[in-house]
Amino acid sequence: MSSSTTTPSRGAETLLKRYQRVRGFSRRLAEPLSPEDMQLQSMPDASPTKWHLAHTTWFFETFLLAPNLPGWTPPNPQFVYLYNSYYNAVGPQYSRPDRGKISRPSAAEVLDYRRAVDEGMQRLLESLGEERASEVRPLVQLGLNHEQQHQELILTDIKHALSFNPLFPAYREKEVQPAAPAHSSTWVDFEEAVVEIGHRGEGFCFDNELPRHRVLLLPFQLSSRLVSSGEYLEFIQDGGYQRPELWLSEGWATCLEQRWKAPLYWRRSEEGWQQFTLGGLRPVEPAEPVVHVSYFEADAYARWAGGRLATEFEWEHAAASLPVEGNFAESERLHSAPASAGGLTQLFGDAWEWTSSSYGPYPRYRPAPGAVGEYNGKFMCNQYVLRGGSCATSRDHVRASYRNFFPAPARWQFSGIRLARS
Amino acid sequence: MSSSTTTPSRGAETLLKRYQRVRGFSRRLAEPLSPEDMQLQSMPDASPTKWHLAHTTWFFETFLLAPNLPGWTPPNPQFVYLYNSYYNAVGPQYSRPDRGKISRPSAAEVLDYRRAVDEGMQRLLESLGEERASEVRPLVQLGLNHEQQHQELILTDIKHALSFNPLFPAYREKEVQPAAPAHSSTWVDFEEAVVEIGHRGEGFCFDNELPRHRVLLLPFQLSSRLVSSGEYLEFIQDGGYQRPELWLSEGWATCLEQRWKAPLYWRRSEEGWQQFTLGGLRPVEPAEPVVHVSYFEADAYARWAGGRLATEFEWEHAAASLPVEGNFAESERLHSAPASAGGLTQLFGDAWEWTSSSYGPYPRYRPAPGAVGEYNGKFMCNQYVLRGGSCATSRDHVRASYRNFFPAPARWQFSGIRLARS
Amino acid sequence: MSSSTTTPSRGAETLLKRYQRVRGFSRRLAEPLSPEDMQLQSMPDASPTKWHLAHTTWFFETFLLAPNLPGWTPPNPQFVYLYNSYYNAVGPQYSRPDRGKISRPSAAEVLDYRRAVDEGMQRLLESLGEERASEVRPLVQLGLNHEQQHQELILTDIKHALSFNPLFPAYREKEVQPAAPAHSSTWVDFEEAVVEIGHRGEGFCFDNELPRHRVLLLPFQLSSRLVSSGEYLEFIQDGGYQRPELWLSEGWATCLEQRWKAPLYWRRSEEGWQQFTLGGLRPVEPAEPVVHVSYFEADAYARWAGGRLATEFEWEHAAASLPVEGNFAESERLHSAPASAGGLTQLFGDAWEWTSSSYGPYPRYRPAPGAVGEYNGKFMCNQYVLRGGSCATSRDHVRASYRNFFPAPARWQFSGIRLARS
Amino acid sequence: MSSSTTTPSRGAETLLKRYQRVRGFSRRLAEPLSPEDMQLQSMPDASPTKWHLAHTTWFFETFLLAPNLPGWTPPNPQFVYLYNSYYNAVGPQYSRPDRGKISRPSAAEVLDYRRAVDEGMQRLLESLGEERASEVRPLVQLGLNHEQQHQELILTDIKHALSFNPLFPAYREKEVQPAAPAHSSTWVDFEEAVVEIGHRGEGFCFDNELPRHRVLLLPFQLSSRLVSSGEYLEFIQDGGYQRPELWLSEGWATCLEQRWKAPLYWRRSEEGWQQFTLGGLRPVEPAEPVVHVSYFEADAYARWAGGRLATEFEWEHAAASLPVEGNFAESERLHSAPASAGGLTQLFGDAWEWTSSSYGPYPRYRPAPGAVGEYNGKFMCNQYVLRGGSCATSRDHVRASYRNFFPAPARWQFSGIRLARS
Repeated sequence: MSSSTTTPSRGAETLLKRYQRVRGFSRRLAEPLSPEDMQLQSMPDASPTKWHLAHTTWFFETFLLAPNLPGWTPPNPQFVYLYNSYYNAVGPQYSRPDRGKISRPSAAEVLDYRRAVDEGMQRLLESLGEERASEVRPLVQLGLNHEQQHQELILTDIKHALSFNPLFPAYREKEVQPAAPAHSSTWVDFEEAVVEIGHRGEGFCFDNELPRHRVLLLPFQLSSRLVSSGEYLEFIQDGGYQRPELWLSEGWATCLEQRWKAPLYWRRSEEGWQQFTLGGLRPVEPAEPVVHVSYFEADAYARWAGGRLATEFEWEHAAASLPVEGNFAESERLHSAPASAGGLTQLFGDAWEWTSSSYGPYPRYRPAPGAVGEYNGKFMCNQYVLRGGSCATSRDHVRASYRNFFPAPARWQFSGIRLARS
Repeated sequence: MSSSTTTPSRGAETLLKRYQRVRGFSRRLAEPLSPEDMQLQSMPDASPTKWHLAHTTWFFETFLLAPNLPGWTPPNPQFVYLYNSYYNAVGPQYSRPDRGKISRPSAAEVLDYRRAVDEGMQRLLESLGEERASEVRPLVQLGLNHEQQHQELILTDIKHALSFNPLFPAYREKEVQPAAPAHSSTWVDFEEAVVEIGHRGEGFCFDNELPRHRVLLLPFQLSSRLVSSGEYLEFIQDGGYQRPELWLSEGWATCLEQRWKAPLYWRRSEEGWQQFTLGGLRPVEPAEPVVHVSYFEADAYARWAGGRLATEFEWEHAAASLPVEGNFAESERLHSAPASAGGLTQLFGDAWEWTSSSYGPYPRYRPAPGAVGEYNGKFMCNQYVLRGGSCATSRDHVRASYRNFFPAPARWQFSGIRLARS
Repeated sequence: MSSSTTTPSRGAETLLKRYQRVRGFSRRLAEPLSPEDMQLQSMPDASPTKWHLAHTTWFFETFLLAPNLPGWTPPNPQFVYLYNSYYNAVGPQYSRPDRGKISRPSAAEVLDYRRAVDEGMQRLLESLGEERASEVRPLVQLGLNHEQQHQELILTDIKHALSFNPLFPAYREKEVQPAAPAHSSTWVDFEEAVVEIGHRGEGFCFDNELPRHRVLLLPFQLSSRLVSSGEYLEFIQDGGYQRPELWLSEGWATCLEQRWKAPLYWRRSEEGWQQFTLGGLRPVEPAEPVVHVSYFEADAYARWAGGRLATEFEWEHAAASLPVEGNFAESERLHSAPASAGGLTQLFGDAWEWTSSSYGPYPRYRPAPGAVGEYNGKFMCNQYVLRGGSCATSRDHVRASYRNFFPAPARWQFSGIRLARS
Repeated sequence: MSSSTTTPSRGAETLLKRYQRVRGFSRRLAEPLSPEDMQLQSMPDASPTKWHLAHTTWFFETFLLAPNLPGWTPPNPQFVYLYNSYYNAVGPQYSRPDRGKISRPSAAEVLDYRRAVDEGMQRLLESLGEERASEVRPLVQLGLNHEQQHQELILTDIKHALSFNPLFPAYREKEVQPAAPAHSSTWVDFEEAVVEIGHRGEGFCFDNELPRHRVLLLPFQLSSRLVSSGEYLEFIQDGGYQRPELWLSEGWATCLEQRWKAPLYWRRSEEGWQQFTLGGLRPVEPAEPVVHVSYFEADAYARWAGGRLATEFEWEHAAASLPVEGNFAESERLHSAPASAGGLTQLFGDAWEWTSSSYGPYPRYRPAPGAVGEYNGKFMCNQYVLRGGSCATSRDHVRASYRNFFPAPARWQFSGIRLARS
């Protein structure tokens, strides 16, 4: 009892290092931003950077420090209300669309809050014996994966917010090397099989990836790479946004109502098509995978191209044996990159791939008990599954069984298209 | 060439009889209604009776008479615009939410239009040789099934419209025998199996029931009957409409926004719970299956009851071997009825059963070519599949492979709940 | 015959005749309409013909028969709720935008209701002695003037409703003689003066025309006639609907949002400008006064033309000495007609004239006591005064002191423009 | 120093000092605010502090420096688009409701912009000869009065924005002395008279205060002071917010829809009524004039109290002979203060007084030529006139003929109530 509280156990030490690395990446993402940038909220679905930084910290305070660290005193008791996002079981929440109306606490105060919680977490993780460590480890892992999700949102939300500025400011200036031409795509064959779907093994996963279960797949083919911007331009030039027969009924209504003419952030100028990126305004590069398309656009494109979207099961089966490698947030390109040649490429990174699967529970699915059980299950309606991560996702956050989900009209994520066919 | 065009072939004769029977049922459904009733439109999703009567007739005129009957002259050329509902390939359509603003043509003129088209159809069907008959038969069958769908909508839409009238007028007065008490429900077991899903055989089906294909089902159980109003009352009394943890996130938002406290048409009065029916205001009968619940309510009830909704594949597998028998529109009860004892009951009739399956295409699905191809495929997004038909469905319209679909918040159909569990 | 209660007094007799004449005109207005027409409601501000017929009858039942006729039994007690429009003091009201959703009572039942109340009113008016008659006379007069207002609304509301029908049905077919060319307009001078404004004398007036009071007018000029459709076409052709500098800020926003390009009911076709009238689709006649313009359009036209709208005091001063003559509903032209030559014309009839005066109370204004006090005063905000009556107004309904009022964007009344200048 | 172009003329010198004083006050108002505060926009009608600081600067750059200062180079050419508010004649404008989405330029860059323009203005004003000075003086005066209007908006907009923060942050902490009890109000009599209305004399005025003209006033009385919070509490306690008969029809609908229960910023807590002020949350002080009420509430209160609102002419006549003294922004109380005893008090300062007058043009009104002519005239519709200035107005900005105007539902200004009666 004496030494176990002072000598950090090996498991806790590793967890602490991971904690510090992941948490540090959030701060790094905020570095290019001014206090004013960090307060921007451009739509109800997006949140200010400052809010992301505080909310992820609130998670560790609420679920780890408050119940587990003796003597922990909340540095800012009001933050419980301000930075609870949707956990009904924890209490009421500040109105989501009004998050951009909070100027105080300032960004500096939020960073102080992060430091205080990080110190508390260090104390907690260093003080745990092996037994307690294995008890809290799952929640810390959940908190870190939660933080990584918000890291991606920091990028997609600030991109959306800055896009309203007619000066087209860059999130950060960065040289992007000229894109190589896109390789031709080929079809990769898959045989009929009963396959196992869902997370397997020891590592972390979200509850929606479980239970692992068997699914019967009929024969199918997947394209060897993502649809490129050049291919998508052909769709536009062939009247893709003017032909209702290519679209789902609700998609066509959305297209008309939102006056979609191209992917989000594309604009036609005198010099041709341009796109707003995290590095400012740049030409549309034909070889780069198209990003920022909705499910409706992905579905319409696939119909136009004579294919379809894959189911999430087909996708997972194809990805299960591949290494998790690709163009992720760590590269700091923060934009999709042309596919390299050969084989089945770009399954991980570059762009989240819309699947035709409506987001629902796996057989015998049970949400985690307690407040963290609100994480996934209650959103299993009217959303579509995306797979594989994007150029704004951390590489160690994603895996073959990972299920992302967004409503069909959503376009502000780095979402793209891969063709399938039967 | 001489006799074949004048002697009706046996196939066409049968088709003509069916044509006359189905078409006659539409007129019969309209009989209790005044010209003013027939013009009511109470929401954009519902249509006036008069419009249903005209639109179904337009289908036969447009797809059968115009291309096939020599010398056919449209009795009212403007009806093409007024009564085209959503076939983009046929041309522009009159604004859907404004259908209730059309007082002319009158109901009488629409009935005249029906008669003219029915005469044309009789001439067409009597004049066809065997070869031509087999060519047009699928379209006539499609038209008749289309008409049957609109017959159900005539009932659900007029119920919705009359419910706005504070005098609670009955669609038609009819003695309803007092309900017997509900039998206890039991669980019926199903083994793991690879099953065939989708329509098989010769008869008519919609394109969304094809292709027939194999699906792997894991073991599951189905409740022997539909959830009764009495059981649903327990859910209400247990705070079902006040507890967010029972609901999908979008469901809970809808519940709050729409101020749902009970199924559509239920109202609490001094004498207890009452419900508006096609026979006027009546007490809620505990033994009758609950109807007019949304997907969100069905899902929340199932969670509360410790079960779940079935997938559409589980449902179809369970129903495939059962006869299509039950409480259908032909009984003219036009309300759900208590289950009889024993076995797996009420799969057909009484209430459409919400499944947990998002409405999507079967593997290798291809819409029918031409305008009729707009019938199903373009709605395969953000809708949930319902199975089995209701007390407002014609018995010969439904079958085990039949897929109905509505958005999750829809409540004006006779939609109910059957529990499943893994 | 002997006693004062059985011999009708001379005053009551006259009142009864007027009652019958005014009430009969409502029925006459409904004659060209089918039961389906009479149920149309095309926007929340408009009401079905059937509702107008019932609501005006409800007024007599509620304010005259119920309190004054011994033994009166309401033929339809539920009508109190259904046909109360806005008298909070009388009780709750059926939702205004849902009036078109009431198919029962039928038009025939409403006409029966009118007959029952008319018989009651006859009994009441015949049974009153002189003393009682002078007590109830003001309320009967109010009821008849109220009915005349709704007669005008019957015409404007059915015109609006029928305009949604792509078949452009006529309210009633009527030969309209070709319009004579418009005479040139001239300016009529008025000197500075302190004038009396408001109703004077014995006859009926609404409470908003009182008290009569003095107002100082500075010198001004009025145009000798209404602005013609031909003149308004010049405004359109000069970019009137594309130049924000001609418009009030709120007017311009409304113009953009509503996509106004011309007066309501005008449409450009291959044969030139056409207008939907109560007689169906007709060419725009340059000599006829323009009608169906909003306050915003009237104001913008006046600015374009180098003039302004008159104040309601200037208008009343100009009209005070003129006879109430013009193109009224009795002519059954039901459309504006070209001005005749000479002097100050068209002040009465043809088109309600927008004034620049916001609708407010006269000094020392007091609403009538009781429920009828809700008639006018509570609307004195964000509305503009119109003067003089239109081709849909009864001649004996209007007078120089009469104040009509509508919100600035309203266009479905027969509202037109007369220029003034200082 | 010798020639007329290098020696500043006496008139220009005075103007420069005024320029520096007024411009300096804007910076002083921004001092308590962080960069994040200065970016807040809480509704489309309000703007960020940063925007106010930039837009007022844009005015001087666009209308003074660009046309008049040789060699002037815009420091930030894009600001013309970003900070033009509504001058259609100057060009397109950035979307008003999105002003809070502009994080760059930062607050610091906007202050740099102010400095650059201030230096330019100093050079311009010092370089002008007498003749040119008298030409540009009116525009400089307009710019400074424009700036003072935005100074008031800086205060009312930041108050509105901070009120969304559940931490109730103070704009700036300041000791407010306890309020003295309110003196009883008395009625002050005014005789019938023809009075002159509108600006007279040499000093600056807006175009909407002209031309001066005669108006006939009937006898009236004004209350000696503003309605106090204590008196307004009696209205609340007497059911003022529950009784439709006290309200204008549109006011009642607004009250229900917005769920008004008290003035904006009032909240009932366990310790009684509190109000959010620029100094944070404070108790409601009965002696202080009520502020932050809409026209609808002012009108309902007056009806409840047996009085009415004054016309703007009555108000101006009463105020014309009084000195412009009272509780203005210079006192930095930034909240209303109890009336002192005796005579007609509080006409200036404390609270803008709603009048019953709809905002319209004076006889023979002509907007100023050019872009600055868009300042006033185009808003003369559906707004009500307020008079006298408030505790957030600069004293040298207001005068007896000054006409402020807001739509009837507006509550975020320091708007209050004075009773009148005939």
